[in-house]
Amino acid sequence: MNKVVLATRNAGKIVELRRILEESSLPIELVGLEDFPDIADVAETGLTFAENALLKAHAVARESGLLAVADDSGLCVDALNGMPGIFSARWSGTHGDDVANLWLLLAQISDVPDGRRQGHFACTAALALPSGEEHVVEGAMHGHVIREPRGANGFGYDPIFVPDGESRTTAEMSAGEKDAISHRGRAFRALVPVIESVVL
Amino acid sequence: MNKVVLATRNAGKIVELRRILEESSLPIELVGLEDFPDIADVAETGLTFAENALLKAHAVARESGLLAVADDSGLCVDALNGMPGIFSARWSGTHGDDVANLWLLLAQISDVPDGRRQGHFACTAALALPSGEEHVVEGAMHGHVIREPRGANGFGYDPIFVPDGESRTTAEMSAGEKDAISHRGRAFRALVPVIESVVL
Repeated sequence: MNKVVLATRNAGKIVELRRILEESSLPIELVGLEDFPDIADVAETGLTFAENALLKAHAVARESGLLAVADDSGLCVDALNGMPGIFSARWSGTHGDDVANLWLLLAQISDVPDGRRQGHFACTAALALPSGEEHVVEGAMHGHVIREPRGANGFGYDPIFVPDGESRTTAEMSAGEKDAISHRGRAFRALVPVIESVVL
Repeated sequence: MNKVVLATRNAGKIVELRRILEESSLPIELVGLEDFPDIADVAETGLTFAENALLKAHAVARESGLLAVADDSGLCVDALNGMPGIFSARWSGTHGDDVANLWLLLAQISDVPDGRRQGHFACTAALALPSGEEHVVEGAMHGHVIREPRGANGFGYDPIFVPDGESRTTAEMSAGEKDAISHRGRAFRALVPVIESVVL
């Protein structure tokens, strides 16, 4: 069975990625970065989701000698020209402080009226092989940003994002409901046939 | 002599605008918003510099019965898709906290390598008449964002911005040197003939 390394240390992402990829019944064994304590974190110096996802996937594929899957994803708010975007996880200046990131975003756009608060979650998923071969797929979920957090599921900006056609935030949905429409769900389902073509 | 109201409560901007407009020897008397304590602050609900500058200029022209000049300006960082942009003065979530805004921006782009830190200061200046007539002009100053603040002049993001062709930040320049090349200097000098055509 082929091992595939999920190249992220973000606990929320690991749970989502495992859930989505395990649903696919691919003949692969998913392992996390915790099995590779010697692989250093890659600085996300790219300026696009794809650049960063590829940076991470290539580094882990090269150092582990295995297939590596990485994603870069974020919330793109129209009123902020698509930001926080690739900076979503470090928007408040500290990497991974979901609460500070969310409240900063709400404060920044507090003057932006209802009806002009559209945005989308974007995800770029990358698959890299130790040989250097690479594949990139994308997924998006459109909606708008509300003014107060609601819901306890998910992570990141989920409590302030309501997808188009929904009245609930993605933090008020079950994991399965979110996966079915989410940017990450779409990107990783698009990755399944790509992984298949590589491992079969 | 025609009175023209400078429609801003930002002390740093008022000093710059007075300096630039007084240089022009226009037959006008500049007055500040402090002379109109009853005019409420306008929420900057626009999503462009021009929208916000016009919102402020029209509100003050209407309520004061005088010519009103307003500007909206900000630092547009390429790696942030042009943000903080119109949100420059409220980037950290609190309006007008220059120090917090500057350090937040530095932290957000700390992973962005030298050579990819380009940006520009942009200024849109608007002139509005009580009749509703309006005029808009623009100015820009291109350069890049450094990693540590330098210099004590200016305000806002001046200590971390080095204009193209310069080695100093705009906070290390004299007022006159900055005015000669700055976004606000350019925009307000472009406004002089417009004011002239209206008041003469």
